[in-house]
Amino acid sequence: MEFTASQIASFIDGKIIGDENALITGVSPIESGESGHLSFIAQDRFSHFLDTSKCSVIIVSENLVEKDNYNPTVIAVKDAYLSFQVLMNLYQEMQGRKEGIEDGSSIHDTAVIGDRAYIGAFTYVSEKAKIGEGTQIYPHVYIGKGVKIGKNCKIDSGARIYDYCIIGDNCVIHSNTVVGGDGFGFQPTAEGFRKIPQLGNVIIEDDVEIGSNCSIDRATIGSTVIGKGTKIDNLIQIAHNVKIGQNNVIAAQAGIAGSTTIGDWNQIGGQVGVVGHIKIGNQVKIQAQSGVNSSVGDRETLYGSPAISYNDYLRNYVHFRNFTEIVKRINNLENTSKDHTNE
Amino acid sequence: MEFTASQIASFIDGKIIGDENALITGVSPIESGESGHLSFIAQDRFSHFLDTSKCSVIIVSENLVEKDNYNPTVIAVKDAYLSFQVLMNLYQEMQGRKEGIEDGSSIHDTAVIGDRAYIGAFTYVSEKAKIGEGTQIYPHVYIGKGVKIGKNCKIDSGARIYDYCIIGDNCVIHSNTVVGGDGFGFQPTAEGFRKIPQLGNVIIEDDVEIGSNCSIDRATIGSTVIGKGTKIDNLIQIAHNVKIGQNNVIAAQAGIAGSTTIGDWNQIGGQVGVVGHIKIGNQVKIQAQSGVNSSVGDRETLYGSPAISYNDYLRNYVHFRNFTEIVKRINNLENTSKDHTNE
Amino acid sequence: MEFTASQIASFIDGKIIGDENALITGVSPIESGESGHLSFIAQDRFSHFLDTSKCSVIIVSENLVEKDNYNPTVIAVKDAYLSFQVLMNLYQEMQGRKEGIEDGSSIHDTAVIGDRAYIGAFTYVSEKAKIGEGTQIYPHVYIGKGVKIGKNCKIDSGARIYDYCIIGDNCVIHSNTVVGGDGFGFQPTAEGFRKIPQLGNVIIEDDVEIGSNCSIDRATIGSTVIGKGTKIDNLIQIAHNVKIGQNNVIAAQAGIAGSTTIGDWNQIGGQVGVVGHIKIGNQVKIQAQSGVNSSVGDRETLYGSPAISYNDYLRNYVHFRNFTEIVKRINNLENTSKDHTNE
Repeated sequence: MEFTASQIASFIDGKIIGDENALITGVSPIESGESGHLSFIAQDRFSHFLDTSKCSVIIVSENLVEKDNYNPTVIAVKDAYLSFQVLMNLYQEMQGRKEGIEDGSSIHDTAVIGDRAYIGAFTYVSEKAKIGEGTQIYPHVYIGKGVKIGKNCKIDSGARIYDYCIIGDNCVIHSNTVVGGDGFGFQPTAEGFRKIPQLGNVIIEDDVEIGSNCSIDRATIGSTVIGKGTKIDNLIQIAHNVKIGQNNVIAAQAGIAGSTTIGDWNQIGGQVGVVGHIKIGNQVKIQAQSGVNSSVGDRETLYGSPAISYNDYLRNYVHFRNFTEIVKRINNLENTSKDHTNE
Repeated sequence: MEFTASQIASFIDGKIIGDENALITGVSPIESGESGHLSFIAQDRFSHFLDTSKCSVIIVSENLVEKDNYNPTVIAVKDAYLSFQVLMNLYQEMQGRKEGIEDGSSIHDTAVIGDRAYIGAFTYVSEKAKIGEGTQIYPHVYIGKGVKIGKNCKIDSGARIYDYCIIGDNCVIHSNTVVGGDGFGFQPTAEGFRKIPQLGNVIIEDDVEIGSNCSIDRATIGSTVIGKGTKIDNLIQIAHNVKIGQNNVIAAQAGIAGSTTIGDWNQIGGQVGVVGHIKIGNQVKIQAQSGVNSSVGDRETLYGSPAISYNDYLRNYVHFRNFTEIVKRINNLENTSKDHTNE
Repeated sequence: MEFTASQIASFIDGKIIGDENALITGVSPIESGESGHLSFIAQDRFSHFLDTSKCSVIIVSENLVEKDNYNPTVIAVKDAYLSFQVLMNLYQEMQGRKEGIEDGSSIHDTAVIGDRAYIGAFTYVSEKAKIGEGTQIYPHVYIGKGVKIGKNCKIDSGARIYDYCIIGDNCVIHSNTVVGGDGFGFQPTAEGFRKIPQLGNVIIEDDVEIGSNCSIDRATIGSTVIGKGTKIDNLIQIAHNVKIGQNNVIAAQAGIAGSTTIGDWNQIGGQVGVVGHIKIGNQVKIQAQSGVNSSVGDRETLYGSPAISYNDYLRNYVHFRNFTEIVKRINNLENTSKDHTNE
């Protein structure tokens, strides 16, 4: 990364206050600015950094600009946060996509690789798999038989996509995530547990992002489904036959047990557990570490294990924190009551 | 997969009602049947699908068959669920096992590979490792020094089996699971934590299945043990020197801390935590998200963090949910008591 | 491993009681000693094993030695536990480090590999990466662009170190851990979530150990930091822009949400969750499964979800366990009160 203040101002249509030739080679958070770096200020509470930051160039929301001379070069824009995002997206695009098939990958003769795709070294593509145009598959990925991956996806190093799973367009699957491992299904017998074959697959719709080290199990029969636009963080368990709708956000280390159905636009917190065979509606918020053990209607907010209404949980938890005092009050009442009875 | 109704009926000794030449090429859950697919009905509450399903062939428990003509071809059997399982197992066997050593694997000269084993591309087998007959090791697996793996195992892509670990017969280890990583052992000193060497191993007995992305740590000295027939789901932590008995079922994201001993036939729920150095008996059930912090006798059922008896937890949690009301009642009692005292 | 009792005694300056030629080929915990193995006894409660153990050689703290003849060969030392540690460290050093670049690795022309480093087969090193002297990188590791790894590190099979991350000296990163995956940052829009580019990196300081299957996300801008000497167990989530200080110990399956700052010498239990954007001081202890949702001062001990003082939690939880009895007492009081009122 090497840009001048004037190049940056031109990307985001900003007004330069200071040296238009100031050179930046990196980006810093405003709290820990470095010389030669770019940062941004979009809120008044960070304005004081305009006088103290070591950054060479700072993008600032124009309503926060009060002087016509600062130590760093200032680029004034309408909304510094948005302009900074635009810039970061531009920068990421400039990095370029990888293309071509690297030496040392193993691709079956019957696999079909789209135009401008990238297949990294040590990646294994099984028979009849199909990789879409412009999709980048990094080194050490395993692609099973008959897997279909859409266009412009990015599959990071060490991800495993098992047989017959289907991934849409514009998806990102991070490192070491396993899509399509066997569901956890065993039939108890007197001698032990007998495995129930897991013959379904996983379908991941367009625009889904899945973090690192997740386990998304294949359905027993039919499909485990992750709906369009849903974003899944790291270390998450999605069990067999779960159906997740569109535009959900699921935070790290959450787990969804088998055959549960989840609607659209829900927010599921970190380390949440959801039992199997229930239905969660739309626009539900589940607080971190909650345990959801029954179906949930639309627009509810939940907390606790087992999860109840968020407000109820917090209100009751206040009393839990005072439980020792409350028990003392009961003791006092009993003593008073005895006194009365003995009167 | 391509079978006729009559082929399927012959596998499971069923009676055909309808077109014996109906062709199936896949399997659907009964709730989302597709033309050309097979499904099954074993419970009365699904019987209505006999009239509405798009499936071409449905296996039905004979007591649920009421007409002699349905839209799909019906195969009547005694127990549709069991027959369907038999069929799925047959189908999975037909898929065949992989055999042979793929180009691009790296196998040390001193390693011993059994007959009919499969070693995938990019799999690394270290010195003196021993792989049993018919065992399938998929691409990108790491097998350390002196590791012994029994017969007819399946080790999925990206699993890591570290030095001197031992795996029995008929085991399945799913993708990206790490067997035999160092236990978490450090000695505090004034300057920081000093690593305690972890020189033991992991022993996995016959018929064990371990899901994806699990961490099973090696013992400090001696062995971490997973007993015969135990089934472990995804993203599970088994710390150093843990001993787990036979036929346990452990659900996703549970964690067992160091040196704890677990008996036979226990059911441990998802996201459960068990502290170190305790003993859990046999046939214990631990509810999801519980935290077990002391030893547990046989046949107990537990819930909560710290875990107590399941029934006690639920009974007390009902009061927790009404805690605000309960405190109001105490307020009222205090007011009444004051009135009395002031009388 | 093959040593005589006299060789072992010479390493740890011990006094032999018994056969100085007794040969050991392995190590056992004292509870499950095996013939031909070495063990140790440092506490009185294990002294009875001196008479019953099958071990061939036992290192014993001299104050526990009472006879001049035992069945196993005894090596008397001042502190058997310490001597055993010394021995295990010696043994591990004898195993030797791996060196050299194995066939089948893929190393970019512009990468720099230090003296005596080991690069395993199927490991991928990207452009301009720099690997320090004596660092061992096992098979199947992915090293991104511009990554810098210090001296004498060990990176286990299947770890992924993404672009521009920096790792200090003497670090250990276990199998399948992902360092520098994208942080979980999305901007909600009416149509769905738009990805916020994650352009920072991860900095891991000297002497850090990270277990298997962890996810340490890169910062949005700036750096996610793991401080010197901090030890992290398995299956742990460290979100973007988290800053962790020195000499912390974090147990398995804990998760730290984005932008949280953690001081020095803290102990964070298994399955703990810490919310984003808070500050945790120094020498704090957080009990397993707790959920920390606000900033924490120095030297506190916490428990519960949301976490409160450890003692308060336990004291109040005792009442929770008796909640049904407590409600009965309130019922009685109300009945008595009614009687009084009706008097």
